[in-house]
Amino acid sequence: MGKRNIKLTLMYDGTAYHGFQRQKNGITIQECLENAIFKITGEKATVTGCGRTDAGVHAEAYVANFFTVSSIECEKLPFALNANLPEDIRVFGAEDMEENFHARYSAKRKTYAYKIVNRPFSDVFLSRYSWFYPAKLDIGKMKLAAEKIVGKHDFAAFMAAGSPVLSTVRTVFSLDVSEKNSVINIEVCADGFLYNMVRIIVGTLVYAGCGKINPDDVSDIILSGDRVRAGVTAPPQGLMMKEVIY
Amino acid sequence: MGKRNIKLTLMYDGTAYHGFQRQKNGITIQECLENAIFKITGEKATVTGCGRTDAGVHAEAYVANFFTVSSIECEKLPFALNANLPEDIRVFGAEDMEENFHARYSAKRKTYAYKIVNRPFSDVFLSRYSWFYPAKLDIGKMKLAAEKIVGKHDFAAFMAAGSPVLSTVRTVFSLDVSEKNSVINIEVCADGFLYNMVRIIVGTLVYAGCGKINPDDVSDIILSGDRVRAGVTAPPQGLMMKEVIY
Repeated sequence: MGKRNIKLTLMYDGTAYHGFQRQKNGITIQECLENAIFKITGEKATVTGCGRTDAGVHAEAYVANFFTVSSIECEKLPFALNANLPEDIRVFGAEDMEENFHARYSAKRKTYAYKIVNRPFSDVFLSRYSWFYPAKLDIGKMKLAAEKIVGKHDFAAFMAAGSPVLSTVRTVFSLDVSEKNSVINIEVCADGFLYNMVRIIVGTLVYAGCGKINPDDVSDIILSGDRVRAGVTAPPQGLMMKEVIY
Repeated sequence: MGKRNIKLTLMYDGTAYHGFQRQKNGITIQECLENAIFKITGEKATVTGCGRTDAGVHAEAYVANFFTVSSIECEKLPFALNANLPEDIRVFGAEDMEENFHARYSAKRKTYAYKIVNRPFSDVFLSRYSWFYPAKLDIGKMKLAAEKIVGKHDFAAFMAAGSPVLSTVRTVFSLDVSEKNSVINIEVCADGFLYNMVRIIVGTLVYAGCGKINPDDVSDIILSGDRVRAGVTAPPQGLMMKEVIY
């Protein structure tokens, strides 16, 4: 019998973690999942994530997969894993997949959301899940800037320097900016994201919203491929992985 | 010149606090506010709250008042206070009131909300702000039970034993139960609440929702005045003070 390839769907509060991917300096989501799988199956599985989320970034529906010879039913797996996971990580879905399913490479679209609290006083309930930005932002200008980002572009200007990738071309399907009760919500869907791309997009929209750049400049910034011309990298805690579509 | 009577509106995450009211065993919201006022004005003011919230209970718009001879402008006061308050307490309003305004006695209506996460897996983002109740609750039955509670009644059965009050009669103006994405939201508005009354109402609705009592029994439970017949006291972290109307 071949190994089963299991897809997990999970949510996590990233506040206490050094991102998804296993590393030496701190505890990560991957490590917690692999430890939980080991406790249940006795197998040292490698969990593959749908993307490398940074320290402090959250997920509502992160997808990962791993191979196992265990016969545990998918219906029972989330309960078994949750019993061996910290409370700020909850697995809520498990599914047997074809052998070639890969959480990252099989993904067709990913959606991230980013929250900005834009008022003079921070929100005590959103402080771990938002960027507190007290100076008034112009939503209209942010929307205009967002329009320039939608489409297939070379996003080299929107990538943390030194990231090793073959191509910096990505297609942004949608980039929506909305506001309710002084909380700005930015939602972006693309076929993939470069390292820090969402946070740099958010920083660029904020630059447009506070008048530091003109919304029309965004097309030039993309064309320039120059990271220095785009906006700041928005802080991680405002970022939430919302959905991965396969 | 007489003392100014200042009304403050604030939000707080109650997780780290022993409720609003100053006490010996732990840090409270009142103590933090009084310390901040002392730092700004040099005055040992007594802050009066609109109600005694329990340890772990939160507030979106709590109201308090205090007397001062300071001439600080109300516009600047929230900023000055916030600079001297922990991050999980934020004052967002300050207003000069008549001498006889009293945060508790002048209140005409108060609204509280309570959240229950009703699904097999807890929500990592709501764990500090909800009651995780995995067994499926019948919302229809909870709504029927809620209807019996609305109105002017003697709520002795819905009060923590031994609370010293003159009258246990209160008027519940509305009690709404709704559900979205497996999160049940209970919102109750009344002219006042007995000690633990909202949490006992929630516990009673949950008893109705899980079949432990019949929704029709609720009228009898109210009439009995017997705390033992009402539901459990729901855990504090699901409770949020929403609004006080004067």
